[in-house]
Amino acid sequence: MTRFALSPPAGRDEARRVKCSTLGIGLAGLGTVGSGVVLALQRNSDLITDRTGGTVRLKVAKALVRNPAKARAADLPADAITTDWQELVADPAVDIVVELIGGTDTAFDIVAAALKAGKPVVTGNKALLAERGTELFALSKEHDTPIHFEAAVAGGIPIIKTVQESFVGNRILSMTGIINGTSNYILERMANAGLEFSEALKEAQDLGYAEADPALDVNGWDAAHKAILLATLAYGFSIDPTKVYVAGIEQVRPIDIEFATRLGYVVKLLAVVREHDDGSIEVRVQPSFIPKSHILASVHGVFNAVAVHGDAAGESLFYGSGAGQDPTASSAVADLVEAARSLRQPDGHRGFLPYKEAGALVPVEETTTAYYVRFDVTDRPGVVAEIAAKLAAAGIGISGTHSPVNPETPDADFVDMVFQLHSCPFGLLQETLTEIEGLDCVNSSPVVFRIEKL
Amino acid sequence: MTRFALSPPAGRDEARRVKCSTLGIGLAGLGTVGSGVVLALQRNSDLITDRTGGTVRLKVAKALVRNPAKARAADLPADAITTDWQELVADPAVDIVVELIGGTDTAFDIVAAALKAGKPVVTGNKALLAERGTELFALSKEHDTPIHFEAAVAGGIPIIKTVQESFVGNRILSMTGIINGTSNYILERMANAGLEFSEALKEAQDLGYAEADPALDVNGWDAAHKAILLATLAYGFSIDPTKVYVAGIEQVRPIDIEFATRLGYVVKLLAVVREHDDGSIEVRVQPSFIPKSHILASVHGVFNAVAVHGDAAGESLFYGSGAGQDPTASSAVADLVEAARSLRQPDGHRGFLPYKEAGALVPVEETTTAYYVRFDVTDRPGVVAEIAAKLAAAGIGISGTHSPVNPETPDADFVDMVFQLHSCPFGLLQETLTEIEGLDCVNSSPVVFRIEKL
Ligand SMILES: NC(=O)c1ccc[n+]([C@@H]2O[C@H](COP(=O)([O-])OP(=O)(O)OC[C@H]3O[C@@H](n4cnc5c(N)ncnc54)[C@H](OP(=O)(O)O)[C@@H]3O)[C@@H](O)[C@H]2O)c1
Ligand SMILES: NC(=O)c1ccc[n+]([C@@H]2O[C@H](COP(=O)([O-])OP(=O)(O)OC[C@H]3O[C@@H](n4cnc5c(N)ncnc54)[C@H](OP(=O)(O)O)[C@@H]3O)[C@@H](O)[C@H]2O)c1
Repeated sequence: MTRFALSPPAGRDEARRVKCSTLGIGLAGLGTVGSGVVLALQRNSDLITDRTGGTVRLKVAKALVRNPAKARAADLPADAITTDWQELVADPAVDIVVELIGGTDTAFDIVAAALKAGKPVVTGNKALLAERGTELFALSKEHDTPIHFEAAVAGGIPIIKTVQESFVGNRILSMTGIINGTSNYILERMANAGLEFSEALKEAQDLGYAEADPALDVNGWDAAHKAILLATLAYGFSIDPTKVYVAGIEQVRPIDIEFATRLGYVVKLLAVVREHDDGSIEVRVQPSFIPKSHILASVHGVFNAVAVHGDAAGESLFYGSGAGQDPTASSAVADLVEAARSLRQPDGHRGFLPYKEAGALVPVEETTTAYYVRFDVTDRPGVVAEIAAKLAAAGIGISGTHSPVNPETPDADFVDMVFQLHSCPFGLLQETLTEIEGLDCVNSSPVVFRIEKL
Repeated sequence: MTRFALSPPAGRDEARRVKCSTLGIGLAGLGTVGSGVVLALQRNSDLITDRTGGTVRLKVAKALVRNPAKARAADLPADAITTDWQELVADPAVDIVVELIGGTDTAFDIVAAALKAGKPVVTGNKALLAERGTELFALSKEHDTPIHFEAAVAGGIPIIKTVQESFVGNRILSMTGIINGTSNYILERMANAGLEFSEALKEAQDLGYAEADPALDVNGWDAAHKAILLATLAYGFSIDPTKVYVAGIEQVRPIDIEFATRLGYVVKLLAVVREHDDGSIEVRVQPSFIPKSHILASVHGVFNAVAVHGDAAGESLFYGSGAGQDPTASSAVADLVEAARSLRQPDGHRGFLPYKEAGALVPVEETTTAYYVRFDVTDRPGVVAEIAAKLAAAGIGISGTHSPVNPETPDADFVDMVFQLHSCPFGLLQETLTEIEGLDCVNSSPVVFRIEKL
């Protein structure tokens, strides 16, 4: 066993000499977040240097865009702008590369090239890391150069650092989060203003919350990418996105929200990550019913929150702005400081390194909650009995049934029929619902919401 | 301007060689938190090594107690126990010193000696750092050896790392916290079970929440120590505790809580830290009325929460267990990992270094909120008019008055008279209340609660 000497390690004197040097940032992307990084550095650069004991001074050396002619929120000299990503990465004035262009192609090339050049990377790109993190973390390890990605999950909330550093001594029992602000906004507007899904989505787009192409927001995949990253950090292995169960909010209808309210719940797009007793990991994203009194039910609008349960820390909650220019830039700047420090550390890989070859994921069929199921049925006597018989045969308990009558069409032929079901494995429920779909009186696939016990 | 080379800095190879060495902890204190550290390390030591890429292995080399014969939650070999703190610090097997004995005398000596020996310190002692931090941070700087103190504020909530690292790129506009669990528990029991202060305190003691001597809990000073540390981190200068306004919860009576409820508020012991436009800092602790709908109002029992407002990150909230064996140990272990890493970094002072000589504190007289004031008055006609006249002369607006009649003594001579007042400087209020105290009809010093706009 080697012991540490009490004298300062070799290299300390050398580091002292470079105390006041400036580190150059290669900023790929000057859009919403990229501009925010420039502005934050302009605003608070002295403060950052002060707070780091004079060791860190950051300057944007070069920035990458598609269209150099575009007017931007942040001003940079014309000769600092390039449209050639290879020039950005190779520039000797660039010590750290910040990837904020989005997508998984050019972004991948940029991050990979930076790692190969030994330049630490800061990124906000959850899609890239969730889809292609395995390759990139391997490169990070090979070249002993960290990737920092606080900005990728929950905007301004320091959830990455919390899970990775503050909870380093905790087994993480679960993480439950509202981590897509757009969905949260839409669900809330449906609940409070009685809007249809499409109306609420339009509103979110008009307000600039949803992307021009809001597909990943509403189909659950943006949240899933973030959940995958959180699970990877907590459990140390790369998670195959194709093994993760993801459902979005497109199927939510005002009637579901009305029911939820009546039963004491709110509907939230929930990301659930949980370790089972056998060490396997449950990862899923879907619109869920959660108790109105739970603190996550109070996460409004485009805010995000993640509840983390550690074996030592107990129950914690981290809440804040889930996206937007300044909050996301706040996280990117914190990572930049981390990266700047890591450049001086001999043992300095502070990025994420997978530490397990693989781990077991719980198949979604084996995950268990209570459920709310809405059927579109033909309105005739016997319908409830037929459905109930199928559920009974499968051993699934019913805690309530409701048939909301639409006052405008009290004698409609097709009605919504809602069943609240006791806890059972999701696979059993799916099989049983497939059988029920075969019944004459059932007109389309039933819609399922989990009722989460938090 | 010196630039960084892209090749690994000198020292990296050497650090690689010591990859699997074990760092020895000198653990001063094996009480609630100290035992928790031993247990957490026993439980999750492999996980910690894995998560740090194999670079950190921690072992308790020596532990300090007063009474070696005492049975403890955590088992250590007899030869690892000492009652001599100097032996602990000097032991060559001790690389990092953890101070968990409490108090400001021996604890000071231990921390100072460790810093002088170049051994990083981890402590949970807010009283020590708030009262004598100036001396210790100076020693930390002189000997280039960090003090880590995540466990000192809000138990298992990583609020120190958040303010210091995650928000490094933010000007901190305000921090508002419920950071004394015992007070919070007492106030809640008074509200929900109608207990008197003394009954609720007794209950908290029986449950082990309050200290045997709960003075610092209920007089507000435990929260004040934590607020001082948070303000010091956020603004970079040592704050003189004697300049901080601190009021505890001893004066809260059931009638105040009843009133708060009726008016849509809850009473919480609130720590408020806020930067004014001129750069001066407001730091104060007192029982306050906060709106029932605010998220801080949902912080129940012995939980803690801190709302942080950064200029970039926006509004955030950090919530979790404020104290207790495991949560506090969780923070101490995270700091141990940080300290272990810092031992290998040439530029590795990751502790706090004050970066301003001094800063201005806002005198409490100049801080402004609305108020609730309770007077003990003689019940005769004209009382309201006399008090109101004094307030009017001072230019303080009244938004409501209430005279709760006690159904058991409807004709008592002395009654409580409550005034709700518009915003004004605290100093003006105090002067005016002194005048009002001089009135014949007022029988004792009025009790003041701030009504906070959050
Ligand atoms: N927006 C948020 O609130 C938020 C929050 C968290 C994470 N993120 C993540 O942060 C990343 C950036 O998001 P954003 O909202 O800032 O995007 P954005 O506003 O669309 O900006 C993208 C920027 O990258 C540049 N760019 C895109 N493709 C390029 C290419 N192939 N070559 C050169 N330049 C290219 C664009 O140049 P032009 O300006 O010339 O078109 C633009 O400046 C994404 O990964 C996103 O998921 C965003
Ligand atoms: N308890 C919490 O939830 C909590 C939360 C946050 C921070 N903290 C802070 O953590 C620190 C420790 O708190 P704690 O609750 O663990 O205290 P504790 O249970 O009273 O334990 C104190 C330990 O220190 C030893 N000790 C005390 N004075 C000593 C001396 N002069 N010489 C040698 N050993 C001495 C005691 O030895 P014996 O066992 O032999 O008496 C005991 O093992 C305090 O600064 C506290 O403010 C505590």
